[in-house]
Amino acid sequence: MLHENFDDKKNPMLAYLNGRYLPKDEIFIAPDDRGFLFADALYELIRSYEGRLFQTQAHFDRLKYGARELRFTINNLDHLAEVAKNLIKKNNLLCGDATIYIQVTRGSAPRAHHFPPLETPLTIYVSGSLFLPHKTEIEKGVNIITVSDQRWARCDIKTVGLTANVLANQLARERNAFEAVFVRDGALLEGTHTNIFAVFDGKVVTPPKTNYILAGITRHVVLGLCQKLDLPFQERSIFESQIDLADELMIVGTTVEITPIVKINGEKFGSGAPGTITRRLQKAFRELKFHRF
Amino acid sequence: MLHENFDDKKNPMLAYLNGRYLPKDEIFIAPDDRGFLFADALYELIRSYEGRLFQTQAHFDRLKYGARELRFTINNLDHLAEVAKNLIKKNNLLCGDATIYIQVTRGSAPRAHHFPPLETPLTIYVSGSLFLPHKTEIEKGVNIITVSDQRWARCDIKTVGLTANVLANQLARERNAFEAVFVRDGALLEGTHTNIFAVFDGKVVTPPKTNYILAGITRHVVLGLCQKLDLPFQERSIFESQIDLADELMIVGTTVEITPIVKINGEKFGSGAPGTITRRLQKAFRELKFHRF
Repeated sequence: MLHENFDDKKNPMLAYLNGRYLPKDEIFIAPDDRGFLFADALYELIRSYEGRLFQTQAHFDRLKYGARELRFTINNLDHLAEVAKNLIKKNNLLCGDATIYIQVTRGSAPRAHHFPPLETPLTIYVSGSLFLPHKTEIEKGVNIITVSDQRWARCDIKTVGLTANVLANQLARERNAFEAVFVRDGALLEGTHTNIFAVFDGKVVTPPKTNYILAGITRHVVLGLCQKLDLPFQERSIFESQIDLADELMIVGTTVEITPIVKINGEKFGSGAPGTITRRLQKAFRELKFHRF
Repeated sequence: MLHENFDDKKNPMLAYLNGRYLPKDEIFIAPDDRGFLFADALYELIRSYEGRLFQTQAHFDRLKYGARELRFTINNLDHLAEVAKNLIKKNNLLCGDATIYIQVTRGSAPRAHHFPPLETPLTIYVSGSLFLPHKTEIEKGVNIITVSDQRWARCDIKTVGLTANVLANQLARERNAFEAVFVRDGALLEGTHTNIFAVFDGKVVTPPKTNYILAGITRHVVLGLCQKLDLPFQERSIFESQIDLADELMIVGTTVEITPIVKINGEKFGSGAPGTITRRLQKAFRELKFHRF
């Protein structure tokens, strides 16, 4: 399994719903929840390394950005950082890797497309899971496929409206690929749950933040690492027609960290081995995640 | 409220989940349900008139089309027609108007974008509600706004990935409009929960079925009525730049039936009153819904 969470069946995981910590299998969502009926919901997945949450503030900033864009009536989501920490502790996720999943919906109300009354409380759900790092993929690199982008025009909002991502990710698996990268009008944008980076003539390149990509936290971290390592970088379009000119390619994200791409659509990319700049960024990322938060 | 369902608080409505009929407030969805996490789900809303479900087979055919497109592992959804009938009876919805809401998701599984194991059972939820017909709107006509289409490219699949529809419908309400109609590349496609029809020089026109519109059941019924009434009709693009040349405009759908448009973006459309072809279609629709199923 490329991207799975693991629960301990004997000690049921605790999760959080609207102010309460409960065994996850006792947590239920109303069928009138707008997250279920309308994908009217945001989510975040935060990585935890040895019990320490990575880039928490950036995740919450993005969640708040989405909440503003969707016009959720939120007073405060800051307590969720504490909830995330609590779930790490309560679920004995202090050793090794874990993920915290947060989903915030516009709440539960009789079904109607327009917003429910302002006083409708948001649904806030948080869970924690052990996470098995993608060691082999990060070390050896992965195969990706490219797919035509069928997603909506507001990919900058991290909603649960992920049907297109599901279909593309499934197609990738069926083609023995790890990730599907969306192409719109000839430009590579991002993966189903990752951002994409390339290296052209020693320069690190990633598509600029537009409405067609999510402002990935790891994407931001990697750009910061480029600066730290004095690697020239640029936010610009990566065209599918020019991909053969790239020296290195990688996908980055909360679960994949920095993962080299060594095959595209079944064809070997470049030398078929991770490149030197990818390796430098991976090394810097490892140092960052364990030493600087 | 333009588009609301009503529940009787004293006699809780029964709903259906995965083979069981339960009071709706005892029905819950697992937070790992793919309908909640990924909008990996389909829905249908079926109208009932005086206890008789309207166009049931067409709704189930469309549900099966979506299930094939999303590659749900379905053996049979035909029992849902019986469930829908049962919910009408069990909930005393035999008099007046009601709606049956059906949602089918890819089931509940640990969160991962790709499909869960094939043996994962689908989640099947069905509920019934009283429905207050839009009498005034149907009689007097409504205001619509046009909005840029931000939806994904598979609008032909009736998924619950409705975030763009939610935002557009809310915008319509805030502009005192009943519906928002999506425009893509200059062409009017459909509303947030309706299809659009126009009349040009006595000819009834509606956009053709493409990946950018849902094959509306009422849309199909209206085209059938055109044939029955010997009204010339054509499936072709309706361009925003040519909308002033239209003699009549209407939205059609399960909840709005055939509703005239008398205002666009705050400006009076045409004479500001429903047109004669609209009235003929409304009359034929009324006869159809009460006499022929």
